[in-house]
Amino acid sequence: MEKVNLREKLNKFNQLWSPKIIGELNESYIKVAKLKGEFIWHKHEKEDELFFVVNGKLVIKLREKDIHLKEGEFFIIPKGVEHLPVAEDEVHVMLIEPKSTLNTGNVINEKTQESLDWI
Amino acid sequence: MEKVNLREKLNKFNQLWSPKIIGELNESYIKVAKLKGEFIWHKHEKEDELFFVVNGKLVIKLREKDIHLKEGEFFIIPKGVEHLPVAEDEVHVMLIEPKSTLNTGNVINEKTQESLDWI
Repeated sequence: MEKVNLREKLNKFNQLWSPKIIGELNESYIKVAKLKGEFIWHKHEKEDELFFVVNGKLVIKLREKDIHLKEGEFFIIPKGVEHLPVAEDEVHVMLIEPKSTLNTGNVINEKTQESLDWI
Repeated sequence: MEKVNLREKLNKFNQLWSPKIIGELNESYIKVAKLKGEFIWHKHEKEDELFFVVNGKLVIKLREKDIHLKEGEFFIIPKGVEHLPVAEDEVHVMLIEPKSTLNTGNVINEKTQESLDWI
């Protein structure tokens, strides 16, 4: 039972598109990640996913509109909704999603991370 | 499907110890609250609860130690663990907890909020 400082956790790694677990509650994980560039279109059939921007700017493209997020803002992607995270410059985010959530959702490719590390 | 800005939401009310709902995912609510002074000792038998400090400082007293949180830090109180939030000065927090969570946990008194508003 220790507190967690988001920026301290983010200082512990540099890898992009590689979420790290920093907490768990009620069968969900709290994660941090560093993103830059474009991910892939995907969706999570059974899980809502929250993106909270700690530092920088993030665009979450949906099929019908773009969501522009800056520091202190979050967006919840409802289950089943296709989305594409895009960061022109490096952005640092906190994610909240069920333990079962795979980063690439319904798509399995070289970006898929089967197991995540705690930091 | 709209983004949420934490500080904008916090600017919408002044009431202390009165969490407001700002989002929902996977049967949990995201809430914001303004706290000042001392709450009551309580626990949530079945629910883990996350306190994230947006602005200010918060002490979460546990029976065996105190957790000191500042902006950008969170603490997860595991189910069944007694805790007492204390804020010397006003602090603004984001909470994440199951929809079923009652603010006063196992204690029902004049501080208990049976229904919460969305803002």
